[in-house]
Amino acid sequence: MHVIVLGCGLVGGPIAVDLSADFRVTVADISTDALVRIKKTANVETVQADLSDKDTVAKLVQPADFVVSAVPGRLGFSTLETLARCGKNGVDITFMPEDALLLNPVAQDNGCTLISDMGVAPGMSNVLAAFSAAMLDTCEKLEIFVGGLPRVRTWPWQYKAVFSPADVIEEYTRPARLVRHGKVIELPALSEPELIEVEGVGTLEAFNSDGLRSLIHTFPMPDMVEKTLRYPGHRELMQVLAHAGFFDTQPVDIGHQQVIPRQLTSRLLFSQWQLTPGEQDITVMKIVVTGTLNGIRTSVTWSLYDEYDQGIHSMARTTGYAATAALRMLASRKFTDSGIFVPEHITRHGALVEFLLTEQAARGVRYHKHISQL
Amino acid sequence: MHVIVLGCGLVGGPIAVDLSADFRVTVADISTDALVRIKKTANVETVQADLSDKDTVAKLVQPADFVVSAVPGRLGFSTLETLARCGKNGVDITFMPEDALLLNPVAQDNGCTLISDMGVAPGMSNVLAAFSAAMLDTCEKLEIFVGGLPRVRTWPWQYKAVFSPADVIEEYTRPARLVRHGKVIELPALSEPELIEVEGVGTLEAFNSDGLRSLIHTFPMPDMVEKTLRYPGHRELMQVLAHAGFFDTQPVDIGHQQVIPRQLTSRLLFSQWQLTPGEQDITVMKIVVTGTLNGIRTSVTWSLYDEYDQGIHSMARTTGYAATAALRMLASRKFTDSGIFVPEHITRHGALVEFLLTEQAARGVRYHKHISQL
Repeated sequence: MHVIVLGCGLVGGPIAVDLSADFRVTVADISTDALVRIKKTANVETVQADLSDKDTVAKLVQPADFVVSAVPGRLGFSTLETLARCGKNGVDITFMPEDALLLNPVAQDNGCTLISDMGVAPGMSNVLAAFSAAMLDTCEKLEIFVGGLPRVRTWPWQYKAVFSPADVIEEYTRPARLVRHGKVIELPALSEPELIEVEGVGTLEAFNSDGLRSLIHTFPMPDMVEKTLRYPGHRELMQVLAHAGFFDTQPVDIGHQQVIPRQLTSRLLFSQWQLTPGEQDITVMKIVVTGTLNGIRTSVTWSLYDEYDQGIHSMARTTGYAATAALRMLASRKFTDSGIFVPEHITRHGALVEFLLTEQAARGVRYHKHISQL
Repeated sequence: MHVIVLGCGLVGGPIAVDLSADFRVTVADISTDALVRIKKTANVETVQADLSDKDTVAKLVQPADFVVSAVPGRLGFSTLETLARCGKNGVDITFMPEDALLLNPVAQDNGCTLISDMGVAPGMSNVLAAFSAAMLDTCEKLEIFVGGLPRVRTWPWQYKAVFSPADVIEEYTRPARLVRHGKVIELPALSEPELIEVEGVGTLEAFNSDGLRSLIHTFPMPDMVEKTLRYPGHRELMQVLAHAGFFDTQPVDIGHQQVIPRQLTSRLLFSQWQLTPGEQDITVMKIVVTGTLNGIRTSVTWSLYDEYDQGIHSMARTTGYAATAALRMLASRKFTDSGIFVPEHITRHGALVEFLLTEQAARGVRYHKHISQL
């Protein structure tokens, strides 16, 4: 079978390498550098292509049995639309700002299966939240805590990522939508900080972020929150920069120029926040669903702790191997419904969740379940 | 007698008002707003004039018996040069980056007396350091701690001033020159933080700044340091902004524009750091000279604590009334040597120091002396 991976960035690359063990893989990107690099280490074909062009994408995926979309978020929706129109089966990890489910009719008309938001969070967080909820008789609360962090904490940011600062700043400024007492509410980004102890990592700080995404609409739970994890101190600095106006997207007049502060800030932070090749990182996630089981208040908790391994950043491992597990699930025809799906939809089939967990565990990404009576 | 005050800013204004009790005062500024405001509250004449033009300044000061230069720092040296060339007596508080003493021959040739750096610090700090040193038999160390602070501490900066952010950022970036073991050394700005308890104020943080100025060359002391005082936390944020590049003066390419980060930062912080009319502030200063007296190790300490009073910011009171005291000293012909002088030169005459202290005390700005055997 032939898989085409769209995007050969820090996550797309490891996805292509992983899939090349079982499939014929073609990876496409606009950067020849990235393609030359991957060609050296993996048995994949490469195509230099401008993935912002819909016709190019349509032509490119034409011969593929399956597609993984790992393009930048701003291209996510249009790429998924092309895949749906072309009737392609596949997995998408683009963290697009738009609602992927709007494309459901197109995918259904063309008889294809496309799973969107299929990374670690969103992605496995949705799968395991819904899976846990299904274990309980009644559910009252979902809490997701997730963060990718550098292993070495360096003053002042104590933060690095495989994403661009512009995307991270977006996460620090977009109001966090969460569900409280059955109602969707918006709170400021970075709000409601709390300290969380993580074994082997130490104290982390959690704060509201806008990461529930599709769960807000697909999931009937009276209280839901997603919080981002960082080393203590990082959030405060982000609040200071936000307060001072350094994240503003409105131009500011500095005498002879109109400057958009966020553009300068992203530029200044780029090299300071970028995980470099070989620089170790970790991923920490905790998903807690609280409800009742046989009349007893019970919580189901899933914990993930993952590390940089063999040259691959943990943020790429946890996102990428969730996507490749889902792709293998499609390729083995375990899930064949037509339409656009978000990860929590898969959870209707418990065996599929086990499949996703097993595939990831085989690559060292291990989720641990813990059930407690409260 | 006729005094001309050049500059009607947040310090120049109160200087003009104070002098108007004893002199005929003319105050000049480019801003008609500032002139209209002062005209309402004080018996002064006003002249709208562009003080960046030397000929304008020369013409303006021609009828004056005495001049106070309270122009922005960047105009300080050229204004002082004009005063020296015109043979005018006066006082300067402009905190110019250049060395005022270079103009000494010009002032001597024209037979006039001009005292530069005659504010609170530099200014009274120099006077009292030299005065204390003269009390001791031998001297080993001078420490100056000084800060102007808002009375109310507001997250995140806990700082406001009557100066522009650009000037304050300059203070946070220019390497601090200090004297250690008899040698002039440079340390980074914001370096060597230490916590200091100030009665009635609480804990403040002191760090190296480049405030010794003329004392480095005029004052034979093996160890000398000047430290700026801020509420704890402010220094850390300034170090973060400096580290991130927000204080850089080299243009940064943000794709379609070249932007100088410090220009944007000054612009964003302007309203956040500006003391508004009626907003209370305080000034804290401690000058410690350590040495020996009659064979016993002894320290002489001068302490200043001053508050906003009757609509005048403390930073304007402490700077401005040091300058008006010095001007009254000149006007009463207590100091008639020709040349450019820095404040420590006055200390040769103990009676003059007493005069400066008495004049300021009459306006509520009180320095307290404390001598301890160590």
